[in-house]
Amino acid sequence: MTKPLRIGIAGLGTVGTGVVRLLRTHGDLLVGRCGRRIDIGAVSARNRGADRGVDLTGVRWLDDAVALARDPEIDVVVELIGGAEGVARELIETAITNGKGVVTANKALLAMHGTSLATKAEAKGISFGYEASVAGGIPIVKALREGFAGNQVKRVYGILNGTCNFILTSMRDSRREFKRALADAQKLGYAEADPTFDIEGIDTAHKLAILASVAFGCPVNFAGIHVEGISQVGLSDIDFARELGFHIKLLGLARLTEHGLEQRVHPCMVPLAHPIAHVDGAFNAVVVEADFADRNMAVGRGAGAGPTASAVVADLVDIARQQRLPVFNVPAASLRPVPVSPIERHRGAYYVRFTVVDRPGVMADMTAAFRDEQVSIESLIQRARSPGDVVPVVMTTHETEEAAMRRALERIGKLKTVREPPRMIRIEQF
Amino acid sequence: MTKPLRIGIAGLGTVGTGVVRLLRTHGDLLVGRCGRRIDIGAVSARNRGADRGVDLTGVRWLDDAVALARDPEIDVVVELIGGAEGVARELIETAITNGKGVVTANKALLAMHGTSLATKAEAKGISFGYEASVAGGIPIVKALREGFAGNQVKRVYGILNGTCNFILTSMRDSRREFKRALADAQKLGYAEADPTFDIEGIDTAHKLAILASVAFGCPVNFAGIHVEGISQVGLSDIDFARELGFHIKLLGLARLTEHGLEQRVHPCMVPLAHPIAHVDGAFNAVVVEADFADRNMAVGRGAGAGPTASAVVADLVDIARQQRLPVFNVPAASLRPVPVSPIERHRGAYYVRFTVVDRPGVMADMTAAFRDEQVSIESLIQRARSPGDVVPVVMTTHETEEAAMRRALERIGKLKTVREPPRMIRIEQF
Repeated sequence: MTKPLRIGIAGLGTVGTGVVRLLRTHGDLLVGRCGRRIDIGAVSARNRGADRGVDLTGVRWLDDAVALARDPEIDVVVELIGGAEGVARELIETAITNGKGVVTANKALLAMHGTSLATKAEAKGISFGYEASVAGGIPIVKALREGFAGNQVKRVYGILNGTCNFILTSMRDSRREFKRALADAQKLGYAEADPTFDIEGIDTAHKLAILASVAFGCPVNFAGIHVEGISQVGLSDIDFARELGFHIKLLGLARLTEHGLEQRVHPCMVPLAHPIAHVDGAFNAVVVEADFADRNMAVGRGAGAGPTASAVVADLVDIARQQRLPVFNVPAASLRPVPVSPIERHRGAYYVRFTVVDRPGVMADMTAAFRDEQVSIESLIQRARSPGDVVPVVMTTHETEEAAMRRALERIGKLKTVREPPRMIRIEQF
Repeated sequence: MTKPLRIGIAGLGTVGTGVVRLLRTHGDLLVGRCGRRIDIGAVSARNRGADRGVDLTGVRWLDDAVALARDPEIDVVVELIGGAEGVARELIETAITNGKGVVTANKALLAMHGTSLATKAEAKGISFGYEASVAGGIPIVKALREGFAGNQVKRVYGILNGTCNFILTSMRDSRREFKRALADAQKLGYAEADPTFDIEGIDTAHKLAILASVAFGCPVNFAGIHVEGISQVGLSDIDFARELGFHIKLLGLARLTEHGLEQRVHPCMVPLAHPIAHVDGAFNAVVVEADFADRNMAVGRGAGAGPTASAVVADLVDIARQQRLPVFNVPAASLRPVPVSPIERHRGAYYVRFTVVDRPGVMADMTAAFRDEQVSIESLIQRARSPGDVVPVVMTTHETEEAAMRRALERIGKLKTVREPPRMIRIEQF
C-alpha cells in the first residue's frame, strides 16, 4: 500500500470539525477507495480548549496556521479559515511555495485571487482542490471539469446561497415579509448575525465567479459581476409571481453573449415549469447548459458540516488517488480574458411593480414611457380598485434590452402619481 | 505535448455518430483540456455506405469490429454496439486481453458481466469507462466514484428510463391511457418498435445494477433485482395519485437494509414535495442519499446522441488525462457480495386500487383482510356511488411489510365482489 497522505487542517469550526469526523468515521472505507490512508498530521485553530465532539488525541496542534504550510510532515494543507486575505491567503500561498497540495472551501479567496493562485499552483505542479467552495453537497466543480469536459458550456446558473433560498421559501410558504423571514433564519442558524454577504448576493457572486471560470475557461472576474440581493423583494412580489406562474429565486447566472461574458446575481422570476423553481429551503441547485449534454441540474445541500466536509474529502481522495487537473479546467496560462457584457446590454423579460395613485391617466403615462422606449408590455395587473388611494400595479414585458427598461422606469419613477421607486425583477427565460 | 490518444469506435448508430461529431466539433477545446489530441484511428460499423452526416474521410474502416481490439494503432476501444453477448462482449474481452482501454455505453453487458469485466480490466491495468451506460447526460458514475467518495451511500434511486418517464408524463398531462401514450412515444422516436426492455423495467434494472455496485461496493447483481414495468399503470391511478399528493414515476431504487441489498424497479407514488416528482418527459434523474453529503439529485437527459456522446467523451478525457480508478470504486477483488433482501421483506406504504361491486359489506370484507394482516389503512376513497355496479375503491396504507400486504391482497382478490385483480403501487417515503 502506498504511504498515507498526511494532511494539516487549518480551522476547526463547523466544517473543520466535520472533516475530522468524516475521516474518523470512514477511515477504512477511504483506504478501500484510495488504496492508502488519509491521516491527520496536524491541526491549527484558535481555541485549543474547545470541545468539538471529535477525538484529536495524538494529533499535533500548531498555534500558527501558516506553520502547517512549512511542516515537513504535511503533504496537503486543508484551509478552512476563510476570508479573501489574511491568514487564509498567507497559508495557501506558503503551502504552494513549499510544494504542498491545497484543499480549500474559501470562495472569497478564489473569487479574488483564483487566477493567480491557480497560476502559482500549476507552476509548482501541486494539486489545488476547491470543490467545497461552491455548493458543498453538489460535486459541481468535478462535473464541470470532468463530467462535461466534452462540451462547450453555454450557460451556468444556480441557487448558490441556501440562506437566501431559505428566506425566499419562508416568505412564500409562511407569508412573512423579508425582515421577519430573515430573523427566523437567524434564529434557526441559517443566517449569520451579520447577514450582508448572504442577503446582498455577495456570497452568490463569489461562487458564480468560480463557476464561470471553470465553465468558460476565462480568468476569475468577480468585479465583472452585476450583483443585487434579496432585501428589496416584497411579499407582494412573491404573491404576484405565483399568480403569473413564477417562483422568485436568487440566482447567479453566467453565459457568453455576443458582447462578452455576462455574469449576474439578482432575484429572478423562474417559470414553474423549470425544475429549479421547485428547489426550496436551504437547498442549492446548479444548472449547466452544455452543447452536447444539454441541460443538467444538480440539487443538494449548499452548506453545513457534512456536505462541506464531503466536498473537502472528495478533493483529498482525488489527491490520494493521484488525480491532478488544471485548476480551472485548462492550464491557468491558457485562461483567456473575456470582456464583460454590462448589465445594460442584458436582454430579457421584466416584471415591474409600481405603487401608484389610482387615478385616470396613470396607466396612459406609464405605458407611454414603455412605448417611447420600444418596450412591449406582455401583461398588466391592477387588482385593487381604490380611486384616489395608492394601489399596486404590476406589469410584465416581452424581451427587451435592460438599458431601455431602465430609461422607461426612470421616467415613470418621476411621475407624480407614482409613489415609490418601481420594483423591477428580471424574468428568466430558459 | 503528449502524443494523441488513438481511439477505435465500434458502432456508428446515433451514439457513435454523436461521438464522431463531438470530437470533430471540439478538437481544439479537448486539446486545451487534455493537453493532447483524441484522434479517431479507425471505426467499424455494419453499413459502410450510409450517410451519417459526419466526415469520416481518412479514417480507417474495419469490417470486423473485434479487429479494433487487435489493432496496434488503437489505444482505446469505444464499444457502441450494445447487447450483453455477441460482438460487443467479444470486442471488450479482446480489448482487455490486448491491454487496450475500453469505453462503453453498454448497460446490458455491464449488468450481466460487470464484475468479471472489472476484474479482468484491473488485472491488466487498463482503463474501463462506462459513464454513458447510465443516464448519459448525468455524470453519475463520476459523482458516485469521486464526488461522493468520502461518503457511505445510504440509498440511490432514480428515473433511469426516459421512455417510461415520457409515457407516464404524457398519460398525466394529455390524459391518455398507457397504450395510446406508448404509441405516441413510438411515433416521436422516444420508444422503440419493440418497447419491452423499456416499459417492462429491464433497462432501468440494468442501470440500477450498475449504480448499486458503484454505490455499495458489491458485485453487480442484476438477478437480485425485483422488476415491474409500467404497462399496468392506469390513467385512473395517475388521477388518484394526484388527488393523494403524488406523481407516479418508474424508479429504480437500491439500499442496504438489515436483510441485505434491496434493489427494486417498479412504478412508485412519489410525494409532490420531492423534487424528483417534478422531473418530467424524457428527462432522467438520479438521487444519491449519502451520510455526509446528504441528499443530492441530478437531472438531465438520459439518452440521445448528444448526451450519450458527452458521457463517452468524458470517459475518453479521463483516459487522455491519465485518470484511472477501480471500475466499481473499490478494486474488483474487494467487492463484497451482499445477500439479496427479497421484495417480501420490503417495508413501505402502499396504494391499492380495487374494482368492486358497490354493495353493503364490501368494505367490511376488505378492511377485515387488512386487519387480519395487521396492515393499517391510512386513507380510503370511494368517489363514485353506483349501487350494484362496479366502482373503483382506492386505499393507502401506513408502513407495513410487503409479505403481509401480498397476503391481504390475495385474500381480497378472491372476494366475489372484487372484479379485477387489485392494482398495487408502492408509495415511496423519502
